[in-house]
Amino acid sequence: MNQIDPKLPTPGLPQITTGPLPASCKRYVAGVIHPDIRVPMREIAVHPSAGEPPVAIYDASGPYTDPAVQTDIARGLAPVRSAWMAARGDCEADTARSVQPADNDFATGTRLVPGFPVQTIPLRAMGGKAVTQLAYARAGIITAEMEYVAIRENLGRSAALPTPRDGEDCGAAIPDHVTAEFVRQEIAAGRAIIPANINHPELEPMIIGRKFAVKINANMGTSAVTSSMAEEVDKMVWSIRWGADTVMDLSTGRNIHNTRDWILRNAPVPIGTVPLYQALEKVDGVAENLTWEIYRDTLIEQAEQGVDYFTIHAGVRLHYIPLTVNRVTGIVSRGGSIMAKWCLHHHRENFLYTHFDEICDIMRAYDVSFSLGDGLRPGSIADANDAAQFAELETLGELTQIAWAKDCQVMIEGPGHVAMHKIRANMDKQLATCGEAPFYTLGPLTTDIAPGYDHVASAIGAAMIGWFGTAMLCYVTPKEHLGLPDRADVKTGVITYKIAAHAADLAKGLPGAQARDDALSRARFEFRWADQFNLSLDPETARSMHDETLPKEAHKTAHFCAMCGPKFCSMQISHDIRTGAQDLEVQKEGMEAMTLKFREKGEVYLPAAKVAE
Amino acid sequence: MNQIDPKLPTPGLPQITTGPLPASCKRYVAGVIHPDIRVPMREIAVHPSAGEPPVAIYDASGPYTDPAVQTDIARGLAPVRSAWMAARGDCEADTARSVQPADNDFATGTRLVPGFPVQTIPLRAMGGKAVTQLAYARAGIITAEMEYVAIRENLGRSAALPTPRDGEDCGAAIPDHVTAEFVRQEIAAGRAIIPANINHPELEPMIIGRKFAVKINANMGTSAVTSSMAEEVDKMVWSIRWGADTVMDLSTGRNIHNTRDWILRNAPVPIGTVPLYQALEKVDGVAENLTWEIYRDTLIEQAEQGVDYFTIHAGVRLHYIPLTVNRVTGIVSRGGSIMAKWCLHHHRENFLYTHFDEICDIMRAYDVSFSLGDGLRPGSIADANDAAQFAELETLGELTQIAWAKDCQVMIEGPGHVAMHKIRANMDKQLATCGEAPFYTLGPLTTDIAPGYDHVASAIGAAMIGWFGTAMLCYVTPKEHLGLPDRADVKTGVITYKIAAHAADLAKGLPGAQARDDALSRARFEFRWADQFNLSLDPETARSMHDETLPKEAHKTAHFCAMCGPKFCSMQISHDIRTGAQDLEVQKEGMEAMTLKFREKGEVYLPAAKVAE
Repeated sequence: MNQIDPKLPTPGLPQITTGPLPASCKRYVAGVIHPDIRVPMREIAVHPSAGEPPVAIYDASGPYTDPAVQTDIARGLAPVRSAWMAARGDCEADTARSVQPADNDFATGTRLVPGFPVQTIPLRAMGGKAVTQLAYARAGIITAEMEYVAIRENLGRSAALPTPRDGEDCGAAIPDHVTAEFVRQEIAAGRAIIPANINHPELEPMIIGRKFAVKINANMGTSAVTSSMAEEVDKMVWSIRWGADTVMDLSTGRNIHNTRDWILRNAPVPIGTVPLYQALEKVDGVAENLTWEIYRDTLIEQAEQGVDYFTIHAGVRLHYIPLTVNRVTGIVSRGGSIMAKWCLHHHRENFLYTHFDEICDIMRAYDVSFSLGDGLRPGSIADANDAAQFAELETLGELTQIAWAKDCQVMIEGPGHVAMHKIRANMDKQLATCGEAPFYTLGPLTTDIAPGYDHVASAIGAAMIGWFGTAMLCYVTPKEHLGLPDRADVKTGVITYKIAAHAADLAKGLPGAQARDDALSRARFEFRWADQFNLSLDPETARSMHDETLPKEAHKTAHFCAMCGPKFCSMQISHDIRTGAQDLEVQKEGMEAMTLKFREKGEVYLPAAKVAE
Repeated sequence: MNQIDPKLPTPGLPQITTGPLPASCKRYVAGVIHPDIRVPMREIAVHPSAGEPPVAIYDASGPYTDPAVQTDIARGLAPVRSAWMAARGDCEADTARSVQPADNDFATGTRLVPGFPVQTIPLRAMGGKAVTQLAYARAGIITAEMEYVAIRENLGRSAALPTPRDGEDCGAAIPDHVTAEFVRQEIAAGRAIIPANINHPELEPMIIGRKFAVKINANMGTSAVTSSMAEEVDKMVWSIRWGADTVMDLSTGRNIHNTRDWILRNAPVPIGTVPLYQALEKVDGVAENLTWEIYRDTLIEQAEQGVDYFTIHAGVRLHYIPLTVNRVTGIVSRGGSIMAKWCLHHHRENFLYTHFDEICDIMRAYDVSFSLGDGLRPGSIADANDAAQFAELETLGELTQIAWAKDCQVMIEGPGHVAMHKIRANMDKQLATCGEAPFYTLGPLTTDIAPGYDHVASAIGAAMIGWFGTAMLCYVTPKEHLGLPDRADVKTGVITYKIAAHAADLAKGLPGAQARDDALSRARFEFRWADQFNLSLDPETARSMHDETLPKEAHKTAHFCAMCGPKFCSMQISHDIRTGAQDLEVQKEGMEAMTLKFREKGEVYLPAAKVAE
């Protein structure tokens, strides 16, 4: 089950948690167009008494939960996608850049995190080509990545589910079944992205778009104040164990390059970054000393490493900055505030905006996806949906068109802090302004008064905006506004956001989403306690909470729990009722017949309406 | 600050937490119509550098947080309302019933929880009168209770706020300012209730209705498996410390009567119960042995003790039971399942339904409010909004009319487990069916797959339904479905539901609700860390999370935190920007002027639209 891997070979390497979750095994499904792809999913077995097949669920955890795979942090994951890139034949070795002391903020000696032991020569597109999933999709090509995510979204089903569809998809037009061709069309239309840098061959592709399952991102990263490389790699593996679909490495301070190398080589999920953070380290934290050249060099450095998406704050335009002056909380995006400071100091337009064309040229050569940053997002309820926020969103819409013209994949970042009644407007405006490019929001937090519990305050907003159409939700941990999340915070953040994302999937009527709820509820009704734990998002916590009061193994099949005790168990009584009701054949006769019967028999009581007269 | 009271006189008595929260003091506001009432509120002081007045917030914590009041669990709270009842002169001593061994399930000797040391003779209405707030309101009387809650809702403001209103109240028509006369009208119309048994003189009155602040309820209670009287009294005081507006004592097993006595005599908030639980204990847990006489006797027993509202499952009608047979989780309400079992066994209509008239006669004699139970609420996503649930709701609508005809106060209980897209229909149907009587929901949980985190899964639904118009939210703790909540779970449940209720208040545009968010956000922006903690829902947790990485006192004014470190603090940069932007006088000139200026100067970059062409 869940354990610290005892076989780690090298001291000093991250201690990571591996092995399957309770009652779970991996299943791999092969492709048809691309027979060599092996798409992972997790199957949770239930007790034989249920007479039910295992429940298949989406699995972001990578090879770490497969006991058949020997993982080794010092060697990295197998580069499964290398053959796919090779087969496309449109890339070449990229020797443009070697690692420089500034990449690790001039850390030396014992302060320098060692480089990743295995170094390979990066790839880039040949002759200015676009090697993006968008370019292939537009050319009518169904890539291995596209077929992979189609199988993954269907959880291995080869046809539409026979069950009737429920839900309200807010205009998303979610299909009954995802085909590889459907994925291609959505990518081609810009409505979905597959963040998949050609230099991240360890990646298990995933799709971000509102016609698919809502995804979640977990942020991590060192800061100048705390954290180490080993912790960050551990947190990455830990976060995907609980369901993070992508991970953003927001490291600042020293050793950024080498830490990221360790993360990327061991990451089966897309890794996102904010390149500006590293660029700022290269100019010693002085925002006004940033230059396009330093930033450009950082983009190439990270693209060669294999970062799958970049947050780029190109929408923070000079003339929007005055719009933030009377805000309660000003500019709360780190990247946004850095660029605003640069703009003001030089009284010049944001260089990310003026050089956006050249940025696109870099992105398309590696298939790094844009995550257009919302540098002017509201940081408080008071600032939500204001002129600064929506002015920037308009610019992000313009930039989306430019990026699409260059065959670059794009998603759009969104807020932030927004009271519930203002959430829908964010989604509608984003769809209208940004041509239905996927929306990727941080929360939003629905109140400011919950520091220490901002995962909850934001899960409310996240679930709602996910239902309305947001494709990926960036998690918020209990430490938001207070400090860097530790391992426990990461898990709490991920589970909380899995709840929000799943609630959104149910509401938008994602085919098959309710299967896990139904299986768990049947287990609950039939007192299969172990199944109930195993089917939950966090089996360990569910089990340990139950065992606090009823620890014995016999209690795992008891027809009650500590909450109500044996006499008051409604579930047990319901079983008696089911039998009783069937004995009476009331079920067959139905409600109306029964009512008639009661009336015929001249029951002593009057209908309530008469009593009221 | 927060500490275990060291001055408790008697060993064996509950250890309760008393004393003010950080930077907080109590303020009491007197009435105008009733000058003797003293309405409590909490004021949170901020640092003098802010130049801001203290922030007034709603305070449910009772005298326990007032250092000027010496509380003593063995004596109980001061009976502040006794004089109000005496002044009305419509009650008489009620000697109808004395405590019987069955009331404590025949517990004896050391197993018997001692009775509360101070016994008083209960009151009841003289000569069949209704002594309910509804009866007074209809008679045009503004009671002390009504003026009390008006002052309480306004947080002491004597006039409407000058600030513009925000929010979308979903048809609630929330006024700018609450007057005592407005409260009277809402009570008279049945749209709000003040649960206030004449035998609960220790009560600080509060109002439940959708034009007022959303309230939360915390459940507690012993079960046959665990818990003791001392724990339950402690949990009650603990839950109101963090903001529970009412408490339901759901005790089962032995000592129900005496435990409830200790709770009531020390409770400044309304106490609700499900009398059926105690009635069932009196027939040794055999549902089919329940009789109207035993139930009736239990109602009187509890009404004489001072219980403020009763959950009564009178809507579980015999002919609805077959509608639950094909459900995934049957009947999940304890009370609902007990009544369904009784109905089926006897093949007779629910005696709570047939005797509803007589129940009303008891309720009106003590002003016990109805909380009409949703015995057929859905216990899983699959069962939401089904025929059984909505059939019962129709009956609750009928019963509401009957209760109103008898001058009884009524609220309606609601689900349960409901996916987000089906929540609004619950609220709309309840309003239409039950004549706008206040709705009181359990969550709803928006997914079934989160045992261990059901406080989060349900906070999403609770916030939404609170926005739509639900007047009170019953909390769900992390232990839901798994075991009885302990002290930590109670706190987590209460804080989580304060978040949901506050998010709902913001969304529905409750006047003044945003003041606390704004004050906290200003503190955040100005690096007043202590103010940020003190203004939060849980100052202790916020502070301790911050101090994990930056424990020194100097860090409490530091212009950064461990999350981003000093170089990346967007808030700090925003301050620089504010100065910079003002220097440039861009603020004065405004956005359009700036745009023009840039164009006039012939900036080298092109507008994005042109680049895209």
